[in-house]
Amino acid sequence: MALPKQYAEQGCSLARALEIVGERWTLLIIRDAFYGVRRFGDFVEHLDIPRAVLSDRLKDLVDNGVMVKATAPGRARADYELTEMGRELWPVVHGLTQWGDEHFASKGPPRFFEHVEDGGRIDSELTCETCHRRIDVEDTRVVPGPGLGKRSSSGAVGEALKSPHRLLDPLPV
Amino acid sequence: MALPKQYAEQGCSLARALEIVGERWTLLIIRDAFYGVRRFGDFVEHLDIPRAVLSDRLKDLVDNGVMVKATAPGRARADYELTEMGRELWPVVHGLTQWGDEHFASKGPPRFFEHVEDGGRIDSELTCETCHRRIDVEDTRVVPGPGLGKRSSSGAVGEALKSPHRLLDPLPV
Repeated sequence: MALPKQYAEQGCSLARALEIVGERWTLLIIRDAFYGVRRFGDFVEHLDIPRAVLSDRLKDLVDNGVMVKATAPGRARADYELTEMGRELWPVVHGLTQWGDEHFASKGPPRFFEHVEDGGRIDSELTCETCHRRIDVEDTRVVPGPGLGKRSSSGAVGEALKSPHRLLDPLPV
Repeated sequence: MALPKQYAEQGCSLARALEIVGERWTLLIIRDAFYGVRRFGDFVEHLDIPRAVLSDRLKDLVDNGVMVKATAPGRARADYELTEMGRELWPVVHGLTQWGDEHFASKGPPRFFEHVEDGGRIDSELTCETCHRRIDVEDTRVVPGPGLGKRSSSGAVGEALKSPHRLLDPLPV
C-alpha cells in the first residue's frame, strides 16, 4: 500500500478503508472473489492482471483480514476466500457496480444480481424487487446481462459465469 | 486517469466506476463535497492534498459529470458541487466509511451520521434507527464522534464540522 501515511492523517474511517481496498485492482479482485473465483490462476485469467500485482494485492488483503489463504488437502496450490470482514464489502461492490450500470452501460448491465429464492432482481438498495426484503450476499446470484462483452464471457471463469451462479460458491472451473 | 485502457478490458460496470472514482484521493474529495466543502482552498486545507493533484482530480470529476464547477456572482473563484450523478455515490461513500468504522475505529467512529428530522443514528443499510425508514443524503447530518482526531477537527473545515451539519449544505467557512 502506497499511501497509508498520507491517508492516515485524515483521521477518517473512509481513509482507513481506502488504505485497504483503494489500491488499483483491489476491488476488482474482491468482486471476482464474490463471483466465486478462488485460485490465483483464475484471478489472473479473468482480470488479465499482472501476476506480480495480483500477488501483492492478495498478500495485502490476507494481511488485512479481508481474505484468507488456505490449501485444501490433496491440492497443490492455495485458494483465496473472502473472510466475514471481506464479505461485508458486498454493499460497496454492489453499489459501485450499480452506479456504473446506471451511467455507463449503454447496452444494459453486463450482469444482473437476483434473489436466489424467487428470482427477483436486486435493486440499488439491495432489496429484492419481488419479495421486497433486503437480500444477503449469500442469497444472491449473478446472471449474464445484455451488456456482457466477449472479453468477460471468454476463458474458464467467463464460461462458468454464463450460467446463473450463487455468489461466494466456488466456480466450477 | 491512469488505467482506463486496462480496466476497460474488464467489460464490467464496476471497472468503469473505478475508472471515475478509483483514483487516489477521489473518494475523499467526494466525501468532503458531501460534507459541504465547495472551495478549492478548503479541499486543500482539509485533505492536506497537493494542489496539483486536487486540480487534476476535480477536472476529471467535472469532465465525467460527477461534479460541476460554477462561479457565483461577485465571487472571484469557482465552487465545486456534486451533480445528481455524484450524489448517487452516497451509499458507496457511506458504506466504505461504516466498514472502516467497524474495523479500524478503535476509539469509536470519528463522525456519526444522523437523520435530521428525528436525530436517529443512520445504520449500515442507510436506515434510521429511530423511524426505520431509508434516509436520503439530503436528510442526513454529520456529527462529531468519539474517535475524531485533532487533525480532522482543526482548520476552518474541521472547525465548521464541530457542530452538526446537514450534508450537501455549504459549510460556513
